[in-house]
Amino acid sequence: MKPIQNTNYQVFFDNSLNILTDILAEKKYSKIFILTDEQTGEHCLPVLQEKLPSLTEFDIIEVPNGEENKTIDFCIGIWRMLLDFEADRNALLINLGGGVVTDMGSFAASTFKRGIDFLQIPTTLLSQVDASVGGKTGIDMDNVKNIIGTFSQPQAVIISTDFLTTLSDRQMTSGFAEVIKHGIIADANFYKEVSELADARAVTEQHIHHSVGIKNKVVTEDPFEKGIRKTLNFGHTIGHAIESWSLTNEKNPLLHGEAIALGMICEAYLSTQLIGLAKEDLESITATFVKYFGKYQIKEGIEHQLLEIMKQDKKNIAGKINFSLPNKIGNCMFDIFADEAQIIESLNYYKNFV
Amino acid sequence: MKPIQNTNYQVFFDNSLNILTDILAEKKYSKIFILTDEQTGEHCLPVLQEKLPSLTEFDIIEVPNGEENKTIDFCIGIWRMLLDFEADRNALLINLGGGVVTDMGSFAASTFKRGIDFLQIPTTLLSQVDASVGGKTGIDMDNVKNIIGTFSQPQAVIISTDFLTTLSDRQMTSGFAEVIKHGIIADANFYKEVSELADARAVTEQHIHHSVGIKNKVVTEDPFEKGIRKTLNFGHTIGHAIESWSLTNEKNPLLHGEAIALGMICEAYLSTQLIGLAKEDLESITATFVKYFGKYQIKEGIEHQLLEIMKQDKKNIAGKINFSLPNKIGNCMFDIFADEAQIIESLNYYKNFV
Repeated sequence: MKPIQNTNYQVFFDNSLNILTDILAEKKYSKIFILTDEQTGEHCLPVLQEKLPSLTEFDIIEVPNGEENKTIDFCIGIWRMLLDFEADRNALLINLGGGVVTDMGSFAASTFKRGIDFLQIPTTLLSQVDASVGGKTGIDMDNVKNIIGTFSQPQAVIISTDFLTTLSDRQMTSGFAEVIKHGIIADANFYKEVSELADARAVTEQHIHHSVGIKNKVVTEDPFEKGIRKTLNFGHTIGHAIESWSLTNEKNPLLHGEAIALGMICEAYLSTQLIGLAKEDLESITATFVKYFGKYQIKEGIEHQLLEIMKQDKKNIAGKINFSLPNKIGNCMFDIFADEAQIIESLNYYKNFV
Repeated sequence: MKPIQNTNYQVFFDNSLNILTDILAEKKYSKIFILTDEQTGEHCLPVLQEKLPSLTEFDIIEVPNGEENKTIDFCIGIWRMLLDFEADRNALLINLGGGVVTDMGSFAASTFKRGIDFLQIPTTLLSQVDASVGGKTGIDMDNVKNIIGTFSQPQAVIISTDFLTTLSDRQMTSGFAEVIKHGIIADANFYKEVSELADARAVTEQHIHHSVGIKNKVVTEDPFEKGIRKTLNFGHTIGHAIESWSLTNEKNPLLHGEAIALGMICEAYLSTQLIGLAKEDLESITATFVKYFGKYQIKEGIEHQLLEIMKQDKKNIAGKINFSLPNKIGNCMFDIFADEAQIIESLNYYKNFV
């Protein structure tokens, strides 16, 4: 499948991973480090080694699974490993994993010795369609997602759909939320197509390619999120808040895509109230996400905790909570502000009507 | 005095600080934070408030004095304060202080919410001529200086020589080392002029302006230190090593400029051995730094500890210790490698001949 061209790098679709060999041969790095989590260290690294038996000279850095570990503490651990293994400015970090590995690894690389090269090999559907394209790096702090980070571009992104077989159904479905989002904000036909799939396992390499293409077009046009790139945040104001809340309050917290799916239902409701999204579109969006994600029980009485988290959202301007909202399926607006009562109403829509 | 133009910002020389009022009026920041250390909080912030009585709406973030506090822990403290005071992406951080405040503050700003604006108001001679120009941000980790950082440009740099009256003689002399360095690497006449001054207190605004101009020319030409910018590192390979060692082993550690002065003597010796610096130039450089800095007792038997620290230097390539060395006063070369025996010999030159 054709690579997708970003301003400074390419997104390759290559199940053979041979492109990695080509990049390493061309760049002649002084040292190669592979960042994994426990999951990808066990399930994806062996796949990579089997496909590329010539790749033998590297050191492994492993971090624990899970968004709750995307913290400065583990980032310090990565920096320290790079330091201990004498990584110089001509070293390479390969991030092999989901969003935690690609976000935190790229932040660590972009700040180690003021920036070393890094490659993204996203292994989850979520990171393939979302976290690995766009040059955003980040870690969480004090329950605020991606509050610390940089804008830094990888040398390349390599997508192999073979890695998706290592995922649980739940992880696969989580990533599907972002695929559907790309349809809602930018491509009504694509939305129709993916919303009719039986389940997330039916997502093809072609769907991923198309989804990455949509995101890539947006971020290439607006790399520093001054305008249209904000549309990618649809579902993320309320979604991030419920995700953060869940991370600190639930034993089995919501995955990113699960939280965003819920957020998109609530925010689609806000769209009907604020910018005239049609009732049929709200119903379609609601039905689609309920079909794949079921219904999550938002705990009673946490509305104000959620609002407090939303007030820390990076997108806010002068303290006003900021939303990116579709005015119809296939088109999205940004810098729309909702007040607290409206936001609570949208949470009630979810509770009462889903 | 005329502002110095960098690619993206200007360095203003303005004892009145009125330029700050102009910038704030133009930019309309949502919130203003001023980062100080204990020293500048006590001695420089009142000066700023006296000069600009209209500046009343800001929050203060204070960190302790000293290079030993340029750490991720205090950086986390700055991030947390910004978070707690609800800094959004349109907030401004003003770094009022020496190199610790400007380096760490700019790193914190460049990574908070993926980058907020920051202004540098360097208050020491060292930070005026060195740390505040060039877009390097950074913190130390595990005794390695500036190992974590970014390349990020301030909105502006404002230099007021009035702040220099708040410095001790020792701090003033420390900054003078970088002024002299700028002469050695790029301007023989300027070197001659400043090396004849009675002491660091004799440095004028004109000297500072000229010194910043030299550095600015170099960093504008090579912002990411791929080539000529490396010449600014003269004295810094050995200097940083002795500085790091001193920081962890001595009660009253060397200041940056003191360590760099020593490093320049040793590295000038290496220059005579490796690239033919004339004996007279070595003697002049040695005499100049001894005149202003006296002689530091390098503890016996620490050579290998120093070499271990040098092996972590960011400038190294493939494990080889890298130097920027003048081949004559007024011109500097870079990417010169010395072996361990030669480096130890240069330390012995300092011990025996200074």
